[in-house]
Amino acid sequence: MISWIDRRTKRVEAPRPSRRAERQSTKKVDIAGFTPELLPYLGQAAYFELGMFENLSRAIAIAPDLAAKEALSAAAGRALSKHQGLVAEIRRRGGEPSEVMAPFTAGLDLFRSETAGADWHELLLTCYLAGGLLDDFFIRLSAGLPGDVGPRVAHLLGQDAGTDVLVTHLKAAITANPALGSHLALWGRRLVGDTLLVARSALPTPGQTPDEDRIEPVYTELIAAHTRRMDGLGLTA
Amino acid sequence: MISWIDRRTKRVEAPRPSRRAERQSTKKVDIAGFTPELLPYLGQAAYFELGMFENLSRAIAIAPDLAAKEALSAAAGRALSKHQGLVAEIRRRGGEPSEVMAPFTAGLDLFRSETAGADWHELLLTCYLAGGLLDDFFIRLSAGLPGDVGPRVAHLLGQDAGTDVLVTHLKAAITANPALGSHLALWGRRLVGDTLLVARSALPTPGQTPDEDRIEPVYTELIAAHTRRMDGLGLTA
Repeated sequence: MISWIDRRTKRVEAPRPSRRAERQSTKKVDIAGFTPELLPYLGQAAYFELGMFENLSRAIAIAPDLAAKEALSAAAGRALSKHQGLVAEIRRRGGEPSEVMAPFTAGLDLFRSETAGADWHELLLTCYLAGGLLDDFFIRLSAGLPGDVGPRVAHLLGQDAGTDVLVTHLKAAITANPALGSHLALWGRRLVGDTLLVARSALPTPGQTPDEDRIEPVYTELIAAHTRRMDGLGLTA
Repeated sequence: MISWIDRRTKRVEAPRPSRRAERQSTKKVDIAGFTPELLPYLGQAAYFELGMFENLSRAIAIAPDLAAKEALSAAAGRALSKHQGLVAEIRRRGGEPSEVMAPFTAGLDLFRSETAGADWHELLLTCYLAGGLLDDFFIRLSAGLPGDVGPRVAHLLGQDAGTDVLVTHLKAAITANPALGSHLALWGRRLVGDTLLVARSALPTPGQTPDEDRIEPVYTELIAAHTRRMDGLGLTA
């Protein structure tokens, strides 16, 4: 597990053009064999979105001005809608949401506390990068879900997250203060390791996975998208 | 102002049947003359609902178990919808929400900090009692708004607040621990004074109001509804 994270982290710190080219050619990776059982999938995704909602609520509480507070409330509402949509899917299958989410609370609570950040800007970057990466990941996994639930979940998670406000505030702060940019670049690189660990935890345990290398291109895609988010903020991934 | 609060507080601590009878006979009080200008009204109500959302988000963060967290997230979503609905009304009239809410942040932030409570149960009671009373109050005031905005706002604020979860948890805790009940009864009595002060601040300043006594029956109604909420929890108002 440790070595897996190390490999990812190295890749993120020094993305090579060849990796990006590789991503283009591997868009159609069949991830179906890696999709977990439906209820655990829904439970983990639902609890993740609840955590995103809690993160955004904290960002609202410590926002420096009312306009930011107001704009963040829309993003918090989107995360909450995703959570509630996933909870509705759990209920539709006769699951009790709190029971279905329970196995994932310890891991995701730890993730949240380790990525909470020391201030408002770090927290915004966490919401933007971890939210973006794991939404992408859960959408990717949804392709392997049975019946019509996959497309429905992909649609739910793929909706505009209302995160423009995060980008706007981060860009403005980075432009005004280059030292903050270099600090946040470091934070962004740290985040990706923890976030990919959450993604990995959603997959069957290594012993049960016949061909771990088949999942590699999916991580490559996720990291490429992460790098684009960092680039868009003017941060070096 | 002080004497006004004192009068209210006494009434709440010793509600007399005659007061309730009086309430029945004064249901049709014309409140139109007391309704503030449209944008300030929307700004104060919108910022109040944002504060309720923040309170409920904090209740989620400190909830003792996942089922409570999950149920509270629905209530938080309702408060957020009310906030967003009011913000939409502000935008529809060309107002900038953060500017329109700005005059009310200091007062409502102070109110929130004074009613935040020392623990989860106090916070739940604040959400239930202050949210209930001020939703009622803003609905009442909406009757005096111009055009079709009044009924629309009344509908928005009158929607189920999803607060059954608050009642369920408070009742269970009070039943299990009578000492908590007497403590929370005290907290509920304290809350009503601060909450009515917020309501009073939404009205034109005393000097501008020709006949303050005309608003009395509205307070009587609000307090009667508050007393019913306390009764429903098994608390003596």
